[in-house]
Amino acid sequence: MYKLSACCSMACGISLHPKMVLASLRIRKQGNGHRTNVPRNVNLEKLQNNYLFPEISKREVQHMDKYPNAKVISLGIGDTTEPIPEKISLSMANYARALSTADGYRGYGAEQGNQALRKAIAETFYKDVVIKDTEVFVSDGSQCDISRLQLLLGSKVTIAVQDPSFPAYIDSSVIIGQAGDFQDKTGKYQNIEYMPCGPQNNFFPDLATTPRTDIIFFCSPNNPTGHAATRKQLQQLVEFARDNGSIIIFDSAYAAYITDDSPKSIFEIPGAKEVAIEISSFSKFAGFTGVRLGWTVVPEELLFSSGFPVINDFNRIVCTCFNGASNIAQAGGLACLSSEGFQAIRSVIDYYKENANILVDTFASLGLNVYGGVNAPYVWVHFPGSKSWSVFSEILEKTHIITVPGSGFGPGGAEYIRISAFGQRDRIIEASWRLEKLFSKEKTLFNSVWNIE
Amino acid sequence: MYKLSACCSMACGISLHPKMVLASLRIRKQGNGHRTNVPRNVNLEKLQNNYLFPEISKREVQHMDKYPNAKVISLGIGDTTEPIPEKISLSMANYARALSTADGYRGYGAEQGNQALRKAIAETFYKDVVIKDTEVFVSDGSQCDISRLQLLLGSKVTIAVQDPSFPAYIDSSVIIGQAGDFQDKTGKYQNIEYMPCGPQNNFFPDLATTPRTDIIFFCSPNNPTGHAATRKQLQQLVEFARDNGSIIIFDSAYAAYITDDSPKSIFEIPGAKEVAIEISSFSKFAGFTGVRLGWTVVPEELLFSSGFPVINDFNRIVCTCFNGASNIAQAGGLACLSSEGFQAIRSVIDYYKENANILVDTFASLGLNVYGGVNAPYVWVHFPGSKSWSVFSEILEKTHIITVPGSGFGPGGAEYIRISAFGQRDRIIEASWRLEKLFSKEKTLFNSVWNIE
Repeated sequence: MYKLSACCSMACGISLHPKMVLASLRIRKQGNGHRTNVPRNVNLEKLQNNYLFPEISKREVQHMDKYPNAKVISLGIGDTTEPIPEKISLSMANYARALSTADGYRGYGAEQGNQALRKAIAETFYKDVVIKDTEVFVSDGSQCDISRLQLLLGSKVTIAVQDPSFPAYIDSSVIIGQAGDFQDKTGKYQNIEYMPCGPQNNFFPDLATTPRTDIIFFCSPNNPTGHAATRKQLQQLVEFARDNGSIIIFDSAYAAYITDDSPKSIFEIPGAKEVAIEISSFSKFAGFTGVRLGWTVVPEELLFSSGFPVINDFNRIVCTCFNGASNIAQAGGLACLSSEGFQAIRSVIDYYKENANILVDTFASLGLNVYGGVNAPYVWVHFPGSKSWSVFSEILEKTHIITVPGSGFGPGGAEYIRISAFGQRDRIIEASWRLEKLFSKEKTLFNSVWNIE
Repeated sequence: MYKLSACCSMACGISLHPKMVLASLRIRKQGNGHRTNVPRNVNLEKLQNNYLFPEISKREVQHMDKYPNAKVISLGIGDTTEPIPEKISLSMANYARALSTADGYRGYGAEQGNQALRKAIAETFYKDVVIKDTEVFVSDGSQCDISRLQLLLGSKVTIAVQDPSFPAYIDSSVIIGQAGDFQDKTGKYQNIEYMPCGPQNNFFPDLATTPRTDIIFFCSPNNPTGHAATRKQLQQLVEFARDNGSIIIFDSAYAAYITDDSPKSIFEIPGAKEVAIEISSFSKFAGFTGVRLGWTVVPEELLFSSGFPVINDFNRIVCTCFNGASNIAQAGGLACLSSEGFQAIRSVIDYYKENANILVDTFASLGLNVYGGVNAPYVWVHFPGSKSWSVFSEILEKTHIITVPGSGFGPGGAEYIRISAFGQRDRIIEASWRLEKLFSKEKTLFNSVWNIE
């Protein structure tokens, strides 16, 4: 049986056996002993208990109990699988070893990150758009920075998200107190503006009908749809933000996967520095999902309504609520941005992109509408009229392949599944072969089954 | 000139030149360009701009400009200086190298931490008090966990802190919205209960006159006073929390420095599991200040007023707002808890403790009242009737030694300075020699100068 991958939250994956995940995450019963008089945080009460990935893990366990000899392939969680190039791992190993020497030992680093790394990030990713190294804040990953940005913004701001979107935007918004109650009927929280993004609008919100919010979370290339916003689309977005006095939080974690001329940074759009923050990551760029390294850019030009620079408050948050990324991980980040390291990383990215091509071709050849995969490591497949959990179950039952039901990313994903292109090539090919076999064999059955619910 | 140490926030230190720190932290002027219509977070408006350590850095720079050839010794920031034992750095190096192999590569880990490390922490530090591995959450450090705990608790709870105390408790409380305005007259925020802790009460609050709060932050051994609460004191604290239905957030980051039989964990006190969370760290225990590794224990028995288990909500916070500590740092943590690693770490701790002895002896021999140093790497020196910034300035001017003025830790530190025992032995001895020379030579002057303000 293939090694399994499972995930504890909607946001990431772990390499434990799913049973262990479920055990560690089970909801404890309410106790009968001493109770404190401290009330539970009302914001956490609002959060929905049903995380996407533990539910997937549960179903995976059930499936394995039913088919103990099945070779399960996980194309669910977006977790990197390929080794880190040697140049990079060696730089981390050398840094770690040097910590045992008087000359190489280092204690606290700057909370904002190693100066050389900040500079390298500014020069590698933002040379043409002139971002200063002091505007780059090195972090332990984008997901963590999203919550730090929520601490920065507080509970009084209004937010908008793409629908579907990466769940951490909404969940962190609920935790900080920006959202109202969850509505079972709509699958949405009150006070959050969900901007539908699908093939009907080329995966870009209809801004003419989108109400103003203080904050707009925008992910491009998008997780889960895989769509990279075009330059024209981003120009419209920046103009919209400028007109409304909004702040865009632009998530470019998948920018390295862009093949065409879509912008890799929001700051490629003139005027963006006065309306945008950018979060990004080494996770999918360099396989650092477990090493933990990311960054956030806050331009000096970005001002609150009073004229107070946002960067000053973000610096205060970073200094108070964070203590810098691991210095070993930062040494690795610096090696990633050397010319040799960068080149080595490109070939790993190309490997995943080739996986994505295989998956796109597979689904397209079956006559399904497939999106993403070109500028992102995610393939987004449409099953019109179906429910994504039903599609998920059918594929698992018939092919032993784990996918992600699109409804986990918001109501806009209800008829979709997301397929991750992270994986070893032989498994991607095996998965494609199983999917082709299923769909060509059972096309009639497949259509009837998936349309009846 | 000795290598300088400087710090960006009240919470930690960095090894940059102080001028670079100041440059990266300078408050940007309010701009004249496009302003968003997003209001600044009112909680951040309440936060005081005057961080302690940038102010110290500024004065250090001014001092160096004035005395360019001075050999400045920093006993200010509590930053570790001694190399990490080889066994530990090697384990991290090997883990990093293996990331370049198909077998050794690892992607996302569990947000709650590596299972083996959680188990090792539970068995090493909590064997006698029976903490389960599932109650241990591995983190990137205590300071980060303090903010995650604030996200857990939300803005509606009331808090109490020791005065003086580690500034991150109060600052994070202000950021999440628990505090009122800062009062210049008292040096305190409204809605926060400051519990005086000094020699007059054996550094333990007078609980009979302390009002109930939902949360009590309590650090033992204490930063900055160096006092480790006795078993009897902690029994009183737990009883107080039980009677009031409060939750204690117990910071045991310096527990490894305890020499006498003071409890190293709040869970040594019967009944504590139903009223306490414990945060701790590898930073001062294993020299991991830059590597970044810590943990938080949330017992299953700890319940909100509704009976809902706190651990469930903390797990949700960790999964949503964090993505696990760096897997390389976690490999190092596991090596620290092996018998060989643990023994090697003990000798580094003993080295810092010997430093503390030297500093305690120095100040005591000068007839000053000295606290701490026995169970903690901090020495807390009383200058009755003086202002701590004046003492700081005098020592710097006359001996080129950086200390920390106690007022930076709250109004209760107004007549004290904190001396860090982290440092290389030759510098500690040199510092002691300079201090002795100053105080024996200028004892009369010293008394008159420090009492006039």
